[in-house]
Amino acid sequence: MSEVVLINPFEVPDDKVDALLVGWERAAAFMREQPGFRSTALHRALTAEARFAFVNVAGWATPQHFADALKRMPALTDPEIRFYPGLYRVVREVG
Amino acid sequence: MSEVVLINPFEVPDDKVDALLVGWERAAAFMREQPGFRSTALHRALTAEARFAFVNVAGWATPQHFADALKRMPALTDPEIRFYPGLYRVVREVG
Repeated sequence: MSEVVLINPFEVPDDKVDALLVGWERAAAFMREQPGFRSTALHRALTAEARFAFVNVAGWATPQHFADALKRMPALTDPEIRFYPGLYRVVREVG
Repeated sequence: MSEVVLINPFEVPDDKVDALLVGWERAAAFMREQPGFRSTALHRALTAEARFAFVNVAGWATPQHFADALKRMPALTDPEIRFYPGLYRVVREVG
């Protein structure tokens, strides 16, 4: 269970929301077939004031599994959509 | 199950990591006693290159429950620790 979590916050202009959703669907369809994939969930902000309109949270078996998948992943290349992916581990948990 | 998710990415200088952990413990101890609290998990980046060294992900019953709790929460007030909290709902999910 050396599970790692990819957290990827997206800055998305209003007129790029559809592009983000299409790109996410494409990436998720690819990722789900890769070794070590566990899950992925796209979170959408409830209000327009959120700094990041979307955040993707995905589980992978190991950092290497994710790195291998990323090399082959179809990229989201719209320059107006900015994102800040990182790999994380849970270090504190309640509930 | 109108569950909402608080996602809070933190920018934390290396010498403020301990302050962040202490602040998180204090906030979590408070939040777990509040109505509508579901869970909270502090994620720490695996590498120093991550834009956000920590990301907190917490579940709440409704946006109102979280708003009510936030009003009473002990705040993290170190000006060198920046954070970008937002409330989210899962809109796409695989796995």
